[in-house]
Amino acid sequence: MGKNSDTVKPLIFITNDDGISAPGIRLLIDRMRKIGRVVVVAPDKPQSGTAHAITIHVPLRLRLLAEEPDYEEYSCNGTPADCVKLAFKVVLKGYPDLLVSGINHGSNSSVSIIYSGTMAAVFEGAMAGVPSIGFSYNNYSHDADMQVCGDIVTDISSKVLKDGLTDGICLNVNIPDVLPGDLKGIRICRQAAGTWQEDFDERVDPIGRNYYWLKGVFVKTGNGDETDEWAMEHKYVAVVPVQFDFTAYEAMGKLKSWETDAE
Amino acid sequence: MGKNSDTVKPLIFITNDDGISAPGIRLLIDRMRKIGRVVVVAPDKPQSGTAHAITIHVPLRLRLLAEEPDYEEYSCNGTPADCVKLAFKVVLKGYPDLLVSGINHGSNSSVSIIYSGTMAAVFEGAMAGVPSIGFSYNNYSHDADMQVCGDIVTDISSKVLKDGLTDGICLNVNIPDVLPGDLKGIRICRQAAGTWQEDFDERVDPIGRNYYWLKGVFVKTGNGDETDEWAMEHKYVAVVPVQFDFTAYEAMGKLKSWETDAE
Repeated sequence: MGKNSDTVKPLIFITNDDGISAPGIRLLIDRMRKIGRVVVVAPDKPQSGTAHAITIHVPLRLRLLAEEPDYEEYSCNGTPADCVKLAFKVVLKGYPDLLVSGINHGSNSSVSIIYSGTMAAVFEGAMAGVPSIGFSYNNYSHDADMQVCGDIVTDISSKVLKDGLTDGICLNVNIPDVLPGDLKGIRICRQAAGTWQEDFDERVDPIGRNYYWLKGVFVKTGNGDETDEWAMEHKYVAVVPVQFDFTAYEAMGKLKSWETDAE
Repeated sequence: MGKNSDTVKPLIFITNDDGISAPGIRLLIDRMRKIGRVVVVAPDKPQSGTAHAITIHVPLRLRLLAEEPDYEEYSCNGTPADCVKLAFKVVLKGYPDLLVSGINHGSNSSVSIIYSGTMAAVFEGAMAGVPSIGFSYNNYSHDADMQVCGDIVTDISSKVLKDGLTDGICLNVNIPDVLPGDLKGIRICRQAAGTWQEDFDERVDPIGRNYYWLKGVFVKTGNGDETDEWAMEHKYVAVVPVQFDFTAYEAMGKLKSWETDAE
């Protein structure tokens, strides 16, 4: 951290999965530098769809890109989860007051959370006990106008810095693709039921072998006005509290009859 | 599928994350062929730690390795999640009666589920509505004696084929590292609280640049006799029903005051 650190300012760690040069993370960095000391460790290339992958077969490298008062920025050759682990152990040698990940170019609502590198970083922070938030914007274009996101990331990050988050809980924030004046507000939501209906584009390479490109469309299978999908359709920011205890507690009783004892 | 298919036998799909040649999947294949028609699509190389990664930047390829009555086996250059998607869309052109993933060389109990390619394949099956089970053996050695696993995978797979599973629920089965005679039975469990306490081995390459190898040890942070960690420590098979709705429902109320409306 640079020399002029003001110890009163909170320490905010930033990462993403679209890579260090994506417009989404640059906007997030700009906003967070206004409310805290900031350290960034983000992938050196896009990592969309990496989910919670970690790198165990190749060594990780960090590259210092910027060092200014209250600001440090590094790229890393690993995944978003790697970036968080390296940041806490090697760069910060401790934990920040807040972890923010994003702003992802594309929604991470509904079951997309499962594939999301953005949210993997958030889970990683939460598992280490750090209040953690993922921000995603419902527009996949690299060149999307993200101005609506600016005040939202500031507001929600400030709230979490002030109030903290319950242990074991982190936030998945999805922002609708609207102009600032059209935004209706914020809603606390549950994850919508949905599925990616995939297909494969089957092609033949120049030496006659088949290969396949994954393609898919998201299809909402459940409804209800408390879901993240509903909120974004109605121009609200969707805030879903998520947990990393995946136990289906309600299903435990039904399976109880399976228990056996050797004697 | 081979020509002598018996349409009465259930169709069982198998994958893993240790790769097609791992002893764990070979044992699983042997056992499943005794109770059903079997199709295997598994990664052509180890994919541990890939979590729910999907491959969107390179094309996927399938290689037919074996075709016998009631049996087909393919390798794929993608992740476990890719294998499931390709199997359902391209190989089966439909859904199996059961998906089994594993037997993983190493535990996927507690928070390890989040990093697990084995369990990513299981979530992928469950999201498609297929009854799905992940099997993991609490010994990381490639050469571990897995004989205790044989009857367990047969028993639990047969139960699920008979009874099905509730929609939105899949099973994370972790098998203790004991000899068959020492196994105490089966317990229905919740995911133990725990964390990977990581560190990085920092080294310097021949041209003077630092690099880092991830290393870590699992530390149980919660206790209780209904957890998967407790069960395995006491020589029980741990069966955790898991869900892919990650919403922290209990936290929604506390955050309700954050909701805003534009007017």
